[in-house]
Amino acid sequence: MDLSAYSVRTDLALEAHDMATASGTIMPGVHRAVENHEGIRISTIDITSEEGARAIGKLPGHYITIEVPELRQKDSDLQDRVATVLAKEFEGYLAKLNVPPMAKVLVIGLGNWNVTPDALGPIVVENIMVTRHYFELMPGQVSPGYRPVSAVAPGVLGITGIETGEIVQGIVEKSNPDLVIAIDALASLSLERVNTTIQIADTGIHPGSGIGNKRKGLTVDTLGVPVIAIGVPTVVFASTIVNNAFDMMHNHFLKQTDNTGTILGLLDNMQENERLELVKEVLNPLGHDLLVTPKEIDQFIEDIANIIASGLNAALHDAVNADNVSAYTH
Amino acid sequence: MDLSAYSVRTDLALEAHDMATASGTIMPGVHRAVENHEGIRISTIDITSEEGARAIGKLPGHYITIEVPELRQKDSDLQDRVATVLAKEFEGYLAKLNVPPMAKVLVIGLGNWNVTPDALGPIVVENIMVTRHYFELMPGQVSPGYRPVSAVAPGVLGITGIETGEIVQGIVEKSNPDLVIAIDALASLSLERVNTTIQIADTGIHPGSGIGNKRKGLTVDTLGVPVIAIGVPTVVFASTIVNNAFDMMHNHFLKQTDNTGTILGLLDNMQENERLELVKEVLNPLGHDLLVTPKEIDQFIEDIANIIASGLNAALHDAVNADNVSAYTH
Amino acid sequence: MDLSAYSVRTDLALEAHDMATASGTIMPGVHRAVENHEGIRISTIDITSEEGARAIGKLPGHYITIEVPELRQKDSDLQDRVATVLAKEFEGYLAKLNVPPMAKVLVIGLGNWNVTPDALGPIVVENIMVTRHYFELMPGQVSPGYRPVSAVAPGVLGITGIETGEIVQGIVEKSNPDLVIAIDALASLSLERVNTTIQIADTGIHPGSGIGNKRKGLTVDTLGVPVIAIGVPTVVFASTIVNNAFDMMHNHFLKQTDNTGTILGLLDNMQENERLELVKEVLNPLGHDLLVTPKEIDQFIEDIANIIASGLNAALHDAVNADNVSAYTH
Amino acid sequence: MDLSAYSVRTDLALEAHDMATASGTIMPGVHRAVENHEGIRISTIDITSEEGARAIGKLPGHYITIEVPELRQKDSDLQDRVATVLAKEFEGYLAKLNVPPMAKVLVIGLGNWNVTPDALGPIVVENIMVTRHYFELMPGQVSPGYRPVSAVAPGVLGITGIETGEIVQGIVEKSNPDLVIAIDALASLSLERVNTTIQIADTGIHPGSGIGNKRKGLTVDTLGVPVIAIGVPTVVFASTIVNNAFDMMHNHFLKQTDNTGTILGLLDNMQENERLELVKEVLNPLGHDLLVTPKEIDQFIEDIANIIASGLNAALHDAVNADNVSAYTH
Repeated sequence: MDLSAYSVRTDLALEAHDMATASGTIMPGVHRAVENHEGIRISTIDITSEEGARAIGKLPGHYITIEVPELRQKDSDLQDRVATVLAKEFEGYLAKLNVPPMAKVLVIGLGNWNVTPDALGPIVVENIMVTRHYFELMPGQVSPGYRPVSAVAPGVLGITGIETGEIVQGIVEKSNPDLVIAIDALASLSLERVNTTIQIADTGIHPGSGIGNKRKGLTVDTLGVPVIAIGVPTVVFASTIVNNAFDMMHNHFLKQTDNTGTILGLLDNMQENERLELVKEVLNPLGHDLLVTPKEIDQFIEDIANIIASGLNAALHDAVNADNVSAYTH
Repeated sequence: MDLSAYSVRTDLALEAHDMATASGTIMPGVHRAVENHEGIRISTIDITSEEGARAIGKLPGHYITIEVPELRQKDSDLQDRVATVLAKEFEGYLAKLNVPPMAKVLVIGLGNWNVTPDALGPIVVENIMVTRHYFELMPGQVSPGYRPVSAVAPGVLGITGIETGEIVQGIVEKSNPDLVIAIDALASLSLERVNTTIQIADTGIHPGSGIGNKRKGLTVDTLGVPVIAIGVPTVVFASTIVNNAFDMMHNHFLKQTDNTGTILGLLDNMQENERLELVKEVLNPLGHDLLVTPKEIDQFIEDIANIIASGLNAALHDAVNADNVSAYTH
Repeated sequence: MDLSAYSVRTDLALEAHDMATASGTIMPGVHRAVENHEGIRISTIDITSEEGARAIGKLPGHYITIEVPELRQKDSDLQDRVATVLAKEFEGYLAKLNVPPMAKVLVIGLGNWNVTPDALGPIVVENIMVTRHYFELMPGQVSPGYRPVSAVAPGVLGITGIETGEIVQGIVEKSNPDLVIAIDALASLSLERVNTTIQIADTGIHPGSGIGNKRKGLTVDTLGVPVIAIGVPTVVFASTIVNNAFDMMHNHFLKQTDNTGTILGLLDNMQENERLELVKEVLNPLGHDLLVTPKEIDQFIEDIANIIASGLNAALHDAVNADNVSAYTH
Repeated sequence: MDLSAYSVRTDLALEAHDMATASGTIMPGVHRAVENHEGIRISTIDITSEEGARAIGKLPGHYITIEVPELRQKDSDLQDRVATVLAKEFEGYLAKLNVPPMAKVLVIGLGNWNVTPDALGPIVVENIMVTRHYFELMPGQVSPGYRPVSAVAPGVLGITGIETGEIVQGIVEKSNPDLVIAIDALASLSLERVNTTIQIADTGIHPGSGIGNKRKGLTVDTLGVPVIAIGVPTVVFASTIVNNAFDMMHNHFLKQTDNTGTILGLLDNMQENERLELVKEVLNPLGHDLLVTPKEIDQFIEDIANIIASGLNAALHDAVNADNVSAYTH
């Protein structure tokens, strides 16, 4: 999770797409499809052209978003169904990338384990069924139905002093996986999506592009193997909430008065940087790192991390299925 | 910490006083004084009349607020000085209440240990130097300079199924302390005060007064012994931030335009319940339990809990002083 | 868990019985029965006379021991079956004690949460489905199939400074349960039983009886309501292991030599207190608090705590059954 | 910590030396010296010949052992003094290896964070003052008195599926430190040394040498830069305790009887593999991974990890000294 801006930002292709097309614009080179399965909504966005990528602000690629509004209700049956859906969708990615059954997979859990909403990746990694060492130490003796899987939570720059991208590159070069899966906590525009949405993308993880930002991404270019990214929005930035408040007030006035000329003039004339100044002032002195979270966040993060780990364990190992998958997470 | 409202609320007498006197009103029966010691501001508010209590919305009593804006900078020297100030101010309370040197003290750490910003009380309790059992098991053999101190974190209603007040009453009746100290995390109006302010009050802990709210307070009336409350604001509610955003926009327009008639009319006419509706809409669907916290919250809470525990250990035991106090916390 | 002796001791009635009857003695007033269910062995010991109680060193009562040697294999299907067996056996106790469906139950998780092998009780409590507050706050609105359940982990003397028995008495007096269930970690004689055995007893929890030991038990006499104890051996004391080593050497020499006269004389003449001295010397300087544990202990404790919590949730609430029980533990 | 044997083993050069010279043998190519400072004993062992190395069973190198029997007494003043001694001794290593003031240092915290006695390395890493990223992101703007330090806890094979040595090699190649410091929990022969002894060695970390053991060491040969190892004995294996018990019984009989012929014959004739069989039998069924630990182990490990982190922070950064060092650990 990149914690770095006062402005409105989203890591979800779905939200970026919906913002970009809010006015009804049709996007060339962008395809969007939706399915619904008893409370689980699966959206596919394919960005096939550079033009579409620029318009949406996301890289070309195949994005699947699984939305489950009821996921915070602690319904274990629903959680199991989401894990199964995730496994099936993930298997689609494996097929699309022609990843063979015995290909080696490295799961990278990004994020800071000391910051609860950023700890998603490390918690998933703790529940991944790791098998690579059995193949190395006892080749030929591993039961059929498993593939070599390794898993690492590399920490963040402030903890290690080393770029996460460099650590991952070093580990990839030494352990030679055929595929990397990177798990990361995301920021969302919408409180509704917090801990209820899972995004899968074959684009890898890209660093923010701000000045001085030296961070390396985790992509096929930097690592030499395909990278599938799985992300879950776990927070909304306080700045997003304040921006929402301004929008809401704007809309409220629109509805409440006929004499909108003066006030709308004021609001519309309020330039982006003035607005940003106001947001900053509201959030002073703690600034842009402020997170808005539900108080049950520890439980929510643990639940969705278990869903992702279960889904991945089932997708990666043929011998793991809906009946035995819970044995591998804790 | 009572997590229960969409409206603007504060648990700090200082903030309540400053709101009530914002317009320059002089409060009869309320006395306020301030001292400054190298980056530590100590405010005293004495509410001596029912009239003053009503005006401010806080019970009659003696409130001390220690404000240390630099407390989040991880300056261990400053942290030690704050603990020493806290010890000294707390000793003032013991003197005022005529608590003798060997009087038995029970420290209650309120709050939910599974919710980081509400875990202040339980973390303080973990670092309190507990000695009561030595006096019970080996009377006459305890070194001079110590008093009998016990400490309990009773949990919250959602964890135990039992009113916290009832649990504490039961423990008080069986263990017979002469004084109860109750530690609690508070909500603040201001991000600036989060984890930088400590309030001491001889009023005990009072429950919210909402309909259906059956929770018992921890006061001399319910427990039969004096109760000193120590609180630290650890969060701002998201609703407070949104309300702040609305205020900020109001002020911005005041400054930006001469033609304020129409717009101020609109803003001023916006009634409290309309405003509340807007706040709710912004925070939908996760609602009023949303907390705004800095991402380093785990570290901040631990630091300030250590300060409080160190201050109390030094105030309660003559044998504990600035030189050896760090041996008793971890 | 009472950590207090150099000598060989067990908290399991089954082990005490087997030691007492090792020489083939028949115990009057003691009945023992065994059933086997696919890897789960259920032993019942009924001690009905004072004479039998004295001989075995356990109080008169009804003891059920569930032994599952494979429980450390992380087989989730087996774990579910053990939880179901525990629920069924526990329902037998409820029936025997004539506990009506809506009777209020208080679950007490004994032990020190800072000492992993002693944290069993507190971890069970975290996973108990707590409902009492719904009955108090919204009487008449709770769905059928639930009863009022509360749960508390009272800590240990060294943490609170207060006798655990006093804290529990205070809470029982204020919250008025009809039945108390006390969960505790036990010491075993046998490494084999560590984290694979669950004992249920209707005797409550009794304190050690050493001189100066003031601790109160949790029994129908001290609390005024029946107390069912559930225990799991989670450690073997290092002193037990050393004693085992001495026994093993004794047996080894018996087997190895014909000329046993001299050596057996030596071994047999070695008096209990000499032997105890040797044990102490081996364990010097850290002494009797030394615990022998497998390195995976954190995981084992969590697994068996989940089994107990699941079993109790199913036994206490009709609406909870094998299909939905996992939703209530985490 | 390598958990792999039934036989008596130690990771401490001091213990290995003392065993090898127990009979008064003088070791050529081995120099041993001792200093005492108010409760802190500093032993130096220099192994300068292959012959000495073989005799002791440790690699040629410079070993310093800091023994502080009182370290478990929670005396914060003593803890500070030990950290200062460690800093001074460590600076001696830096001088000996000609490590310049701005040389880059990587601290590796070995061990499994899920197994308390093996978590020493990861806990030290959490308290190391990490600065390398400031030098990378803002070269020229870092205050004087600091050097570039990075820190990683790479996990263990069972957690990641990847050899720890491979992960460290990858990180070293990408981040280019000039020196590696490796922290590890050790096994001791003696309960007395558990959590009271710190060993520093310029030999790096060497893998066990058992058949099939593929693990790579962390040495100047594998990493290309010098490796200083810091270790603390945090456990005694249960097998060591059982072996001690056998020895103790042997000595007991020696003292107790004149007629030692028969029995000593028995004991002395008991061959190493018979003895090993007995040890195995005692520890059956949980086997050689059984650890003997004091119950306060969590606290002990945290305390000694803080001492090591404080000592290293002071040794590595000139700007960190006894007055401000506590600000950098938590």
